[in-house]
Amino acid sequence: MGKIILTGDRPTGKLHIGHYVGSLKRRVELQNSGEFDEIFIMIADAQALTDNADNPEKVRQNIIEVALDYLSCGLDPEKCTLFIQSQIPELTELSFYFMNLVTVSRLQRNPTVKSEIAMRNFETSIPVGFFTYPISQAADITAFQATTVPVGEDQEPMIEQTREIVRKFNSVYGDALVEPEILLPNNKACLRLPGTDGKAKMSKSLGNCIYLSDTEEEVKKKVMSMYTDPNHIQVSDPGEVEGNTVFTYLDAFCKDEDFGKYLPDYKNLDELKDHYRRGGLGDVKVKRFLNSILQAELEPIRRRRKEYEANIPYVYQILKEGSRRAEAKAAQTLNGVKEAMKINYFDDLEYIEEQARKYKGQE
Amino acid sequence: MGKIILTGDRPTGKLHIGHYVGSLKRRVELQNSGEFDEIFIMIADAQALTDNADNPEKVRQNIIEVALDYLSCGLDPEKCTLFIQSQIPELTELSFYFMNLVTVSRLQRNPTVKSEIAMRNFETSIPVGFFTYPISQAADITAFQATTVPVGEDQEPMIEQTREIVRKFNSVYGDALVEPEILLPNNKACLRLPGTDGKAKMSKSLGNCIYLSDTEEEVKKKVMSMYTDPNHIQVSDPGEVEGNTVFTYLDAFCKDEDFGKYLPDYKNLDELKDHYRRGGLGDVKVKRFLNSILQAELEPIRRRRKEYEANIPYVYQILKEGSRRAEAKAAQTLNGVKEAMKINYFDDLEYIEEQARKYKGQE
Repeated sequence: MGKIILTGDRPTGKLHIGHYVGSLKRRVELQNSGEFDEIFIMIADAQALTDNADNPEKVRQNIIEVALDYLSCGLDPEKCTLFIQSQIPELTELSFYFMNLVTVSRLQRNPTVKSEIAMRNFETSIPVGFFTYPISQAADITAFQATTVPVGEDQEPMIEQTREIVRKFNSVYGDALVEPEILLPNNKACLRLPGTDGKAKMSKSLGNCIYLSDTEEEVKKKVMSMYTDPNHIQVSDPGEVEGNTVFTYLDAFCKDEDFGKYLPDYKNLDELKDHYRRGGLGDVKVKRFLNSILQAELEPIRRRRKEYEANIPYVYQILKEGSRRAEAKAAQTLNGVKEAMKINYFDDLEYIEEQARKYKGQE
Repeated sequence: MGKIILTGDRPTGKLHIGHYVGSLKRRVELQNSGEFDEIFIMIADAQALTDNADNPEKVRQNIIEVALDYLSCGLDPEKCTLFIQSQIPELTELSFYFMNLVTVSRLQRNPTVKSEIAMRNFETSIPVGFFTYPISQAADITAFQATTVPVGEDQEPMIEQTREIVRKFNSVYGDALVEPEILLPNNKACLRLPGTDGKAKMSKSLGNCIYLSDTEEEVKKKVMSMYTDPNHIQVSDPGEVEGNTVFTYLDAFCKDEDFGKYLPDYKNLDELKDHYRRGGLGDVKVKRFLNSILQAELEPIRRRRKEYEANIPYVYQILKEGSRRAEAKAAQTLNGVKEAMKINYFDDLEYIEEQARKYKGQE
C-alpha cells in the first residue's frame, strides 16, 4: 500500500509566516522527498463555514488567497493535488455514515473541540456543524485513504477520533478504510510562532502577523517594530532572550550560514544570544539581521505570487483540476464504503436474484 | 408554485395495518386526488441506519418489504416517485450545510428527539447521526421542495425544525428553499392503532401486529384471539367498548355499508356498540365481523403483493427509476442552494473575472 498525505487549511484568512514554518515549508519538503505516492492538500471551505455560516463571502475570498499562498510557497500541482473541500460531495456522504458510529458524549469529550468551543465563546449556541467537525475531518482523511497526516500536536485528539471511527467501521462493516498516522513537526521552535507583538497567537484582528503576501516594506516595518525585552533599554543593558519575539523568530528561521551572509561577527545563534544576554548588543542590529533572513526566505515566495496573481483564472483551473482528481479518489473510497455497508442495492445483482428466488419460493 | 408531497417510512420492519390506516391509505387517496403535482415517497434507509448502524442487513432486507407494501397498497409508480434515501447523495450535502444553521442546544430541546432517545434507552450513548436526524429530515423535505408533509401530530416538532432551518437559510443566503406545511390525518381513530393484545403500540417484538403481508389464515387467527373486555365473560354480560381492541379496530376500518354486507342485523357501528354495552352480544360475532371487513380490505393488497413478489427485479427497477428521478429533483435544489451560498466557485465565471481584475489592479 502506498503512502498518502492529506492535509490542508481553513480559508478564513491569508496565510502568515507562522503557517509557513509550522506547516507549509514542511509540506513542500514532503512533496519533494519522493516518499509519498499521493499528496492531497485541501482548502477546507466547508469546515470554515461551520463557524462562519453567516459570512460565506469571507470564506470565498480567502480560497483564492490560500491557493496563491500554497502555490507561492512551492506546492506544485504536478506533484500534489490542491482541491476545495466543498467540491467533493463524497465527503458529506462519508460524514453522514460516520455520524452513526460516534456518540454525542464522545464528541463532548474531545479536548480539541472543547478548547475550540471555549475559544470561540460559543457556550450553549455551538452550531451542530462545528460540534461534529471531528467526524467530518475523519471523512476528509479517510476519503483519500491517507496514511499520514502532518499536523501539530494539538491535533492529536482529532486524529485519534479518526482512528477510532476507522476501527469501528472496519469491525462493523468489514475493512474498507485506512487507519492514518499523525506526522508531527520536526522542529519544536516552529510549532507556534508568536505574533510580532509577543502575544502567543498571530491573529488578523490583533494586527500582529507577517503575511506571506506582505511587501518587502511591510515585512521590514513589522520586524523593526517587533516586541523584544521591555527591560533592554540601553544597548549596554543585559537582555532576555526567552520570550523575546525577535529571538523566537530567529530560532525558527535562522541557519548558521545566515551569519556568514548577514552578520559575520558571530558564528551562530548561540553566540548572538550570549552577547545579547551579556549586554552591548542593540535590538536594531538583531532586527536587521532577522529582516535580512526573512526577506531572503520570502523573496522567491513573493515573486511566484506575482506570477500567479497575474493569472487568476489559471489558479482556478488548477483548483478545478485538483478537485476533479480528488473527487475521483474519494468516489473510489465511497464505493468501497457502500459495498461494505451493502447499501449499493442496485449494483448488487446477485442479491436481487437471491431475493427474487426467496419470494418465489414463498408462494 | 406546485404542490409537492414528501413522506416515507424507515425500513426497519414489514408494514402493518396500523401503518395502513395511519398513513398508507391516505397517501393512496392523496395520490389519486389529482391535487399534487409531485409526490415523493422515500424509503428512509439512511435514517434507519442512524440507530441500526450495527445491523445493515436488517435495513437492507426491509427495503424490499416496504417497497412491496407500498406497491400492494396501490401507490402507483406512474403517479408518485418511490425511492431509496441513500441513493440520493445530495441529501447528505444539504444536511451538512444545514448543520451550520442549528445549534446543539436547539436539537437537545426537540421534544420528538427527546422522547425517541428515551424510548431507545440511549441515555449518554446516542449516536450523533440519531441526535442530528431532525436536520437530515429537513434536508429530505427541502430537497424535493415539498410544500406538504402528511404525518402524525407527534411529528409536528420535526416539521417546525425544518421550517426554522428554511427561514434561517433563506435569510442568510437568499431564498432557495420552500417552507413546508404539515398535513395532519383526517381521522382521529386512525392515528395510532393499538396492538392486537390491547397494548398501545404494535411492535414486532410483542408479536401483536397484523401485517399487510399476512395470509388470510394469519389475519383470521390474530383477529379471533384479539384482546377485548376482560370482564365480558358470558355473552349475556354487559361489555365495555372503550379500550376494547376489536371496537377500536372497527372505529378505524368499519363503514356503514359493511353492515349490509356482513352483519345485516345492525344499521351501523353505534347500534352494534349499544348492544355490546347492554349485554347479549358475544365477542366471537364481533370478531367475525371485523375479520370480514379486514379480509375485504386486505384481499386486493394481498393479491397485488403476490404479483410483485413474482417479479422482484421489476420492483428494484421501479426503485431505481424512482431514485433517478428523485436525485434529479434534489440536484436541482442543491444547485440553487450552492448558488445562494456562493460555493459554486468554478461555475461563477463572472466572479473569477472580477478576482482576476482585482489582483491585476493590485500590482
